[in-house]
Amino acid sequence: MSAETKPIFDKIALIGVGLIGSSMARAARRAGAAGHIAGYAHTPEIVERARKAGFTDTMHSDLAACVRDADLVVLAAPVGAFADIAKAIAPHLKRGAIVSDTGSVKGVVMRDVAPQLPQGVHLVPAHPVAGTEQSGPEAGFAELFDGRWCLLTPAADADADAVAKVSKFWSRLGSQVEIMDAKHHDLVLAITSHLPHLIAYNIVGTANHLEQVTKGEVIKYSAGGFRDFTRIAASDPTMWRDVFLNNREAVLEMLGRFSEDLTDLQRAIRYGDGDFLFDLFTRTRAIRRSIVDAGQDSAAPNFGRNKSGDQ
Amino acid sequence: MSAETKPIFDKIALIGVGLIGSSMARAARRAGAAGHIAGYAHTPEIVERARKAGFTDTMHSDLAACVRDADLVVLAAPVGAFADIAKAIAPHLKRGAIVSDTGSVKGVVMRDVAPQLPQGVHLVPAHPVAGTEQSGPEAGFAELFDGRWCLLTPAADADADAVAKVSKFWSRLGSQVEIMDAKHHDLVLAITSHLPHLIAYNIVGTANHLEQVTKGEVIKYSAGGFRDFTRIAASDPTMWRDVFLNNREAVLEMLGRFSEDLTDLQRAIRYGDGDFLFDLFTRTRAIRRSIVDAGQDSAAPNFGRNKSGDQ
Repeated sequence: MSAETKPIFDKIALIGVGLIGSSMARAARRAGAAGHIAGYAHTPEIVERARKAGFTDTMHSDLAACVRDADLVVLAAPVGAFADIAKAIAPHLKRGAIVSDTGSVKGVVMRDVAPQLPQGVHLVPAHPVAGTEQSGPEAGFAELFDGRWCLLTPAADADADAVAKVSKFWSRLGSQVEIMDAKHHDLVLAITSHLPHLIAYNIVGTANHLEQVTKGEVIKYSAGGFRDFTRIAASDPTMWRDVFLNNREAVLEMLGRFSEDLTDLQRAIRYGDGDFLFDLFTRTRAIRRSIVDAGQDSAAPNFGRNKSGDQ
Repeated sequence: MSAETKPIFDKIALIGVGLIGSSMARAARRAGAAGHIAGYAHTPEIVERARKAGFTDTMHSDLAACVRDADLVVLAAPVGAFADIAKAIAPHLKRGAIVSDTGSVKGVVMRDVAPQLPQGVHLVPAHPVAGTEQSGPEAGFAELFDGRWCLLTPAADADADAVAKVSKFWSRLGSQVEIMDAKHHDLVLAITSHLPHLIAYNIVGTANHLEQVTKGEVIKYSAGGFRDFTRIAASDPTMWRDVFLNNREAVLEMLGRFSEDLTDLQRAIRYGDGDFLFDLFTRTRAIRRSIVDAGQDSAAPNFGRNKSGDQ
């Protein structure tokens, strides 16, 4: 067996087997990155569905049993549940184990998880910047992380070997890995992910309670642009509630800037300032081009939706 | 030749052969809906590119020559140019000809086009609710209108036969046709299309001039949600400038509601009201489901972008 196909961890434990956790299991298996893949779900129904899908070696409804002897334990649950999970697993962690997570907010991991962990256990927070609007164990797929970024936010004094192993693990799952400060992470993601979700949730909410235009009309004519927003506004409600509650400061900061810019745009429309509009719309078009050039989106029109009817 | 394949118009003239005009030409040819397809472009370069693409029977740089003897003349240009085009073609229109358009705003057609037309020429404004973020004669394709809505907004006293023929024409191009009042159209589209574009342009603009987060980071980590917005913020700047300048009232009205809702959402985040967030995010998820059920978007995760790397 070559070095590239040897498991990086003898046993990994995935606390949560929704879209992200189940995709990790599938990607780890594809890559042979883990000897044994254990999964935990907090309801018997999800345990059953995960067993049926078959992407783990063992499924558990007991946290202690899931993390026992695990070399890597990954919290793949909404960040609001992290404190309770960390407290529950702490007594059962193997000495030398690495605890990581997949949360979209990273400051909270330091606040809620770090203080619970016993001596000799290493914390390496991680955030795979990937996902779809779908949830649950059946929604995952092995290719989810291919070519996407995974951001690690270890503390300054984190164990270098542990960081290197987690980094190698994510590379094997298909990701490009980058290490950054947790605070900077939360600011970057506030603009690239949290604010877009917030705005999408808001506009879909606005459309939902108009009385001059019917809900049926909003749905019928959504191909004019609205439908693009509904995709991310269909993301998991619990996960996103927890993101906003746990990245409050950075989200409010970015929202403040967004609102200032929107006021300028509103004024340009009110006073018929066509040059302002044209200049902005030309700049934003260039950003799209950069994202496609960076391989972070499809160059095909309409994201490559099927041309005839988008079915 | 059966009734379904007989041309509806002996000659159509497309004033503008960008994404929409060139898609109409391709769809009309596919359906055999027009005997002769004439196209007009306002620069020799576009005339040449359109000739090369070959979707029209004749290409013209002279408006009079393009519309001569045409049974249907379609303004497929930015709505800000409609007044000038209408004035220029009016003396050359055949008696009994139908003038239509593809503008995303319909009140302006009554204001800018109707007064210019001679007696005996019929005006039937139309808006195909379809498009991509790409522009130009090469961007068009015959399937663009398949399964999408085309909204006709004739005046109350419009010629019924002319309305029926334009309706039949769009059906043959693949669209579902609906007739509505121009004012209501502009309100419906303000929420389903104009506001989403405005918000997308704004957030992409905000991201573009942050100094705490680099432009490179915004692009790298755009898969967290931001990239979805950049697609519609890459739409044609001239077209969209004209939309906002010509649907000012309805856009400002919808923007006002959006801002009110955003204030509520901001407050919920500031004060940690998780229930408010969860309830909103659950309602918006249902809207997505309705749009997919109505056949107006893809049910595939990520709009069906290629799973591995979205290339």
